Amino acid sequence: MTKEGVQGATEEEEQQQAQSKKGLKKQQKEAEKAAKKAEKQAKLAAEQQSTEEDDFAKDRYGVAAMVQSQQKLGKQCFLVLRQQQFNVQALVAVGDRASKQMVKFAANITKESIVDVEAMVRKVEQKIESCSQQDVELHIERIFVISQSEARLPLQLEDAVRPDGEGEEEGRATVNQDTKLDNRVIDLRTTTSQAIFRLQSGVCQLFRDTLTNKGFVEIQTPKIISAASEGGANVFTVSYFKTSAYLAQSPQLYKQMCICADFDKVFCVGPVFRAEDSNTHRHLTEFVGLDIEMAFNYHYHEVIDSITDTMVQIFKGLRDNFQTEIQTVNKQFPSEPFKFLEPTLRLEYTEALAMLHEAGVEMGDEDDLSTPNEKLLGRLVKEKYDTDFYVLDKYPLAVRPFYTMPDPNNPKYSNSYDMFMRGEEILSGAQRVHDAQLLTERAIHHQIDLEKIKAYIDSFRYGAPPHGGGGIGLERVCMLYLGLHNVRQTSMFPRDPKRLTP
Amino acid sequence: MTKEGVQGATEEEEQQQAQSKKGLKKQQKEAEKAAKKAEKQAKLAAEQQSTEEDDFAKDRYGVAAMVQSQQKLGKQCFLVLRQQQFNVQALVAVGDRASKQMVKFAANITKESIVDVEAMVRKVEQKIESCSQQDVELHIERIFVISQSEARLPLQLEDAVRPDGEGEEEGRATVNQDTKLDNRVIDLRTTTSQAIFRLQSGVCQLFRDTLTNKGFVEIQTPKIISAASEGGANVFTVSYFKTSAYLAQSPQLYKQMCICADFDKVFCVGPVFRAEDSNTHRHLTEFVGLDIEMAFNYHYHEVIDSITDTMVQIFKGLRDNFQTEIQTVNKQFPSEPFKFLEPTLRLEYTEALAMLHEAGVEMGDEDDLSTPNEKLLGRLVKEKYDTDFYVLDKYPLAVRPFYTMPDPNNPKYSNSYDMFMRGEEILSGAQRVHDAQLLTERAIHHQIDLEKIKAYIDSFRYGAPPHGGGGIGLERVCMLYLGLHNVRQTSMFPRDPKRLTP
Repeated sequence: MTKEGVQGATEEEEQQQAQSKKGLKKQQKEAEKAAKKAEKQAKLAAEQQSTEEDDFAKDRYGVAAMVQSQQKLGKQCFLVLRQQQFNVQALVAVGDRASKQMVKFAANITKESIVDVEAMVRKVEQKIESCSQQDVELHIERIFVISQSEARLPLQLEDAVRPDGEGEEEGRATVNQDTKLDNRVIDLRTTTSQAIFRLQSGVCQLFRDTLTNKGFVEIQTPKIISAASEGGANVFTVSYFKTSAYLAQSPQLYKQMCICADFDKVFCVGPVFRAEDSNTHRHLTEFVGLDIEMAFNYHYHEVIDSITDTMVQIFKGLRDNFQTEIQTVNKQFPSEPFKFLEPTLRLEYTEALAMLHEAGVEMGDEDDLSTPNEKLLGRLVKEKYDTDFYVLDKYPLAVRPFYTMPDPNNPKYSNSYDMFMRGEEILSGAQRVHDAQLLTERAIHHQIDLEKIKAYIDSFRYGAPPHGGGGIGLERVCMLYLGLHNVRQTSMFPRDPKRLTP
Repeated sequence: MTKEGVQGATEEEEQQQAQSKKGLKKQQKEAEKAAKKAEKQAKLAAEQQSTEEDDFAKDRYGVAAMVQSQQKLGKQCFLVLRQQQFNVQALVAVGDRASKQMVKFAANITKESIVDVEAMVRKVEQKIESCSQQDVELHIERIFVISQSEARLPLQLEDAVRPDGEGEEEGRATVNQDTKLDNRVIDLRTTTSQAIFRLQSGVCQLFRDTLTNKGFVEIQTPKIISAASEGGANVFTVSYFKTSAYLAQSPQLYKQMCICADFDKVFCVGPVFRAEDSNTHRHLTEFVGLDIEMAFNYHYHEVIDSITDTMVQIFKGLRDNFQTEIQTVNKQFPSEPFKFLEPTLRLEYTEALAMLHEAGVEMGDEDDLSTPNEKLLGRLVKEKYDTDFYVLDKYPLAVRPFYTMPDPNNPKYSNSYDMFMRGEEILSGAQRVHDAQLLTERAIHHQIDLEKIKAYIDSFRYGAPPHGGGGIGLERVCMLYLGLHNVRQTSMFPRDPKRLTP
């Protein structure tokens, strides 16, 4: 006999749809009353099992479930059982192993309750299109409720995974983003969310494994810092005993100290904090930084090559090992497969400007790219080179932080780069100034208070190798790889200027 | 010809020791003067290379080095070149490939400067005891200074790695911890520090790889939270736009939400924050938490088994793959090899109390263990069972947080546990209450404001599997595994009530 223990939540869709909406509120109240009663009875039942009424299947179903007593029941009921991203149809039918009472009990288990079942796995003749396991169903012989869900859910999972267009066309409900995020514990149960965050877990693993194989060392850097690192704007303040401190906007200074401390190549994965009042689709006040820093021998392009190769390994790993997740997300949010080249396309800033000028954009040589221009450039690059991933190298010196190494050949430019996925920035990086004197000059030029960055500058006084690196936003990588349109979809518990919960 | 490009820092020990301490200050000043001059000359030289004096080896050495002009030089000089945890002896000798000027230049390169060299690797007849590469030395043919260190270092690396005892006995200098931490960039260059943090990187990797193989999903949880999770004590406050927020004391509530959200088994690695004014050898205000949470089927011992097995995999991985690092640390800080059993020893709290009573300790059944008693118990367990790692199970309910599942068999105890390494706690964990009603009761019993934990309690209303987990302190694991005595040694940039820098 096949015995399969399945733990998951039931979606007793057929029964539920039969209930009229009108009666729902009334039922709710009665249900609550019944639930309390049931609970009492359950306790009693547990204590005095021997005195229970005669039922040959009494050890086949559980004690903690809520009974909605008005429903008329047939001789069988269907359930859908879910376990993470998979689900299967299950059946309780009156017979050898199940009584009428047991069928009634099963039919009344609230949606999203957790159950343990013992069942026979049987092949079905017609594919069950609505389940991930389409060729089999479970014939339940024992069923116990482990944790009962409240009857009314804040949102329906089937609404939360409905593609926007489909919802509108057919007049069926979809769930808006704030409702999803307010009830994240339930929203995360959808196949889409399960797929997104399993893929995100994969991105982190691929990032670390690739770098570990390249000889990088993982470091842990402090998030509470004594001085705002990059000039002091957009930084959160923390009360620290009798003084105050700040939350690190990036681990960059610490990564650099590790390079000066002889670690040669380092990476870290951790939260970074930005007190920017930006309410856009791609800004969070707290996100996960995938950070890289490394010494190089001759040219900072060694660093670019290491980073782009790491990204390519991530893209390949996702493509090869996360197809199920990608396709699951695509069902709700259709998008083109992510394209990349080997080796990665590297354009210089001046080349990009020429492309933009040709497309009619007016901007100066030393201006930074606006978000619309970044996106336009992404489209132009995709048309010309057929890639969703590329590097933009040699940014104007004026638009980069003070610790960016100037271009030795042209004082207007710098040894710095951004990387883009589907036309949006996912990484910013550069060769850093590793000479204390030049660093001091650059800080003065940027009107930064030297006293505040003394410890940082002093780190370069005792031998510092040429080095560079960059910081990648994990949520953006996931969003853009999957072709999603809001970074909150790829942050489990997103933080923005208006959201601090759950 | 063997060509070996070595990048590292020089320790021109022989030359340095020949200088009398008396003359050091004077030399220093003159050196600084000379350095300035040298710099000017270097610039000039770079610009007007063609006009330079005739030297057949002029393309064999660099331009940016400081010249200490008083020293008399011989026909050769020895250097020690270091690259991360390895070092090698190198020689510049007047001959075909090096001039007298070149030997002089090499001898005067300041300690800790970064150099590029081209050299022949030659076997030596007598082992070079002072270097990690004992059988060979480098005969330098070209040498360039890439980054020149200032002449006076805040601390000497050889002092920083000297065992405490040896320093005292022989009257040689050691470096106190605050000096080390104040100059962490240099202190991290010691073989001891390099070994500690490479091992720490290994702990993280072993932790994640073991759990990934067990089907765990990595999650990222927010550090800025809207309500102090565990009653409100010891929490840092953050200014958050027009309101205020807190830094998470643990990812526990979020881990639990992920379990309720169907992820089944999750882990995360990230910073946790404790605003405790504890100035001890084992408390930090910010440390790295290795967190685990998982649903279980029948008994929370499934969780204990998963965690202890993960710890055992870490211990084995360190033992098998990090012997070099362990032995390097042992040279400075001798300790016994770390011992563990398979399966891991699990003691009940009452058994531990009996052992302590027998050893003369007076404490009540429901009292928590004091730190001295934990350490004593560690020694008693080591004597009796020969293990440095064990689990203490079934803590008194009264000393655990409100969300701890009570023991069904004895209301005085709970389904909770700590884990110990060398007698110190490294993990605290428990089965959590997964029932909203019981959780509410327990919170009321602990006099916790229900309004503040509403979102948390609500997470359990829509189906929640029985689950448990725990949080491990990364720095403590590294400290105790290596037999070190201060957690600041295993935190790269430690944070405590008195230290926020570097």
